[in-house]
Amino acid sequence: MNILVINCGSSSLKFQVINSETEEVKASGLCERIGMDESRLVYQPAGCEKEKTVLPMPTHKEAIAHVINALTDEKKGVVKSLSEIDAVGHRIVHGGEKFAKSVVITEEVIKAVEECNDLAPLHNPANIIGIRATQELMPGVPMVGVFDTAFHQTMDPKAYLYGTPYEYYEKYGVRKYGFHGTSHAFVSARAAELAGKSYDDCKTVVCHLGNGSSISAVENGKCVDTSMGLTPLDGLLMGTRSGAIDPGALEYIMKKENMDYAQMMTVLNKKSGFLGISGVSSDCRDVEGAAAEGNKRAKEAIEVFNYRVAKTVGSYVAAMNGVDVIAFTAGIGENSATTRSAICKYFGYLGIEINEEANNTRGEEILISTPDSKVKVFIIPTNEELKIARETAELVK
Amino acid sequence: MNILVINCGSSSLKFQVINSETEEVKASGLCERIGMDESRLVYQPAGCEKEKTVLPMPTHKEAIAHVINALTDEKKGVVKSLSEIDAVGHRIVHGGEKFAKSVVITEEVIKAVEECNDLAPLHNPANIIGIRATQELMPGVPMVGVFDTAFHQTMDPKAYLYGTPYEYYEKYGVRKYGFHGTSHAFVSARAAELAGKSYDDCKTVVCHLGNGSSISAVENGKCVDTSMGLTPLDGLLMGTRSGAIDPGALEYIMKKENMDYAQMMTVLNKKSGFLGISGVSSDCRDVEGAAAEGNKRAKEAIEVFNYRVAKTVGSYVAAMNGVDVIAFTAGIGENSATTRSAICKYFGYLGIEINEEANNTRGEEILISTPDSKVKVFIIPTNEELKIARETAELVK
Repeated sequence: MNILVINCGSSSLKFQVINSETEEVKASGLCERIGMDESRLVYQPAGCEKEKTVLPMPTHKEAIAHVINALTDEKKGVVKSLSEIDAVGHRIVHGGEKFAKSVVITEEVIKAVEECNDLAPLHNPANIIGIRATQELMPGVPMVGVFDTAFHQTMDPKAYLYGTPYEYYEKYGVRKYGFHGTSHAFVSARAAELAGKSYDDCKTVVCHLGNGSSISAVENGKCVDTSMGLTPLDGLLMGTRSGAIDPGALEYIMKKENMDYAQMMTVLNKKSGFLGISGVSSDCRDVEGAAAEGNKRAKEAIEVFNYRVAKTVGSYVAAMNGVDVIAFTAGIGENSATTRSAICKYFGYLGIEINEEANNTRGEEILISTPDSKVKVFIIPTNEELKIARETAELVK
Repeated sequence: MNILVINCGSSSLKFQVINSETEEVKASGLCERIGMDESRLVYQPAGCEKEKTVLPMPTHKEAIAHVINALTDEKKGVVKSLSEIDAVGHRIVHGGEKFAKSVVITEEVIKAVEECNDLAPLHNPANIIGIRATQELMPGVPMVGVFDTAFHQTMDPKAYLYGTPYEYYEKYGVRKYGFHGTSHAFVSARAAELAGKSYDDCKTVVCHLGNGSSISAVENGKCVDTSMGLTPLDGLLMGTRSGAIDPGALEYIMKKENMDYAQMMTVLNKKSGFLGISGVSSDCRDVEGAAAEGNKRAKEAIEVFNYRVAKTVGSYVAAMNGVDVIAFTAGIGENSATTRSAICKYFGYLGIEINEEANNTRGEEILISTPDSKVKVFIIPTNEELKIARETAELVK
């Protein structure tokens, strides 16, 4: 089957066409600046160069029409006609407690996703716009929703309940949901496979470290904990996000800076993290560069990041009473050898030993622990699009 | 030396007289409802019954005068005259970055403590009032300030920096400080002693679990991390405090409940924690009782509490790359066998084994791990007053 995978944001849309049997990516690309001036399509058929075309996209519908035109183009297309697209898989950010699995999209499903809009006001409405536009242009083609939160729905109350009044949970769904679930599911399954263990009998910590970062604890195929919360702001230090912080400190900052909470949230989401501590950049590579040149704040930002990752991994090893495999994935996790090395140095007590030669690898699936290491440590490039294509094919076959 | 130890709150004042050579408590007590109707002195000389007397205390000065009268009373006093009180040790809550140790109180010190008032607006001003009143009534007697935050000042930036803009740290001192430092210092030193290890060569996790709870990691005599933050709201689940929570979740709750941040803080400080989740009580004993009778929310509150403690311990084991000793202290830590047992069950992977018979102990210094356990686990009753008396005697001798 040919699966069109769509990840729709408020002003952008990423896509891939994946053959679900061969798992080959036939084409990929994105639409940028939807609803703005200078909107454009970036399109890349497998084995060819990227092509950028400025095209009018007043709404997501025109964006998707351009994608379909490109995919079915006589010269550069990868399918002869729209009828060769067998299904569409949509990434949806927040499924609340309603969705613990991927689902075939129906009117009922769209309603239920809309009911989660409050939990992800920036993301879910955009996801629904993408679904509606695709449905209009591809009538009759089955569509599947794959949720960022679904994989984490196996958490126990002890992991997902906050210390706030229980009524907030009952009335408003205030709890930890977690994100990056598609990545954590993909990588944890692959980690067990690479370690030669059954997924149903394996304790894995997945470190998804990128511009947004989260860690999950996966025990016997089920997520038992994860570091993001009701929103993607909680947990680790990120590019521009603060991660966890004493709520009492926020009151203190707001008084000192004379800010309201909306302003505080903008600071925590956009001006904090690597950028806030280092003052250099939100990009870990720039901060690493500055640190190498002796920038003290850049060095401290990296140490805060690594230390928080190590503490979270340590806490999840306790949550599972042990660990068999640790996997690093996403931008930083796949590419920064120094980060992986620094994090793993905290775990001598678990018998973890890193093979620094193997670790000196970028974006490649590889075992980076030594043969003697008591815990297997891998780099596993994540592939959320492939996971979405697999789930979609599985549900519509 | 006879040391008068004073812990002064906004409307209360606790005191003890401790002989610093024998470490015997000669008398203890408290003043309640200072500045209110029905204010009273509770006074107990060693070996005698408690005595409650309603006495007028319009300000802390009258309260301290009553304490001095009681201590020097012909019949019930424990010293013949004021001149037998050799020094006074004052508990001070927040020393910011200014105080990494206890200090002899001078005008300069008081000024520096006042400069930390913003960091602890409910506590520091009351502490200063107590110091001023005692100075007036006991002129010439040396006084020492012992800070709740001082022991944690050895933390590295990677542990104390938040992910917020660095300028907040530089301008306002926004960072993790930690509290219960006197208890963590006392218990960690005693833990090394009981384990037969040098304090300078020992990795200890101290679980101070009470109505307010915090955990610290103490490596070679120095605190390397602790779970409370700039304020005592962060970290674990507490009696009525939420502990850590996604800052994004707070925005969501405030919108749903139409609250401002001051109201949100009241909920997080007063209506959350054991009380908020269970709906039963802020007292762990009541919640345990309800859970035993099958109350689901009470059971979940206890599981959240234990799980967060276990995760924090696990994270500190990673922070220190191992652990030699774990110590339980304070109300819950000293008294709840089921809590200690449930927490230690997470740590099979560290080779921790609990002797359930030894664990079935309340408020007594005892080893509760088995002889085979790879980590020694103790109950160690905390004694902040004794620690304050020791620090005071050391500084004025």
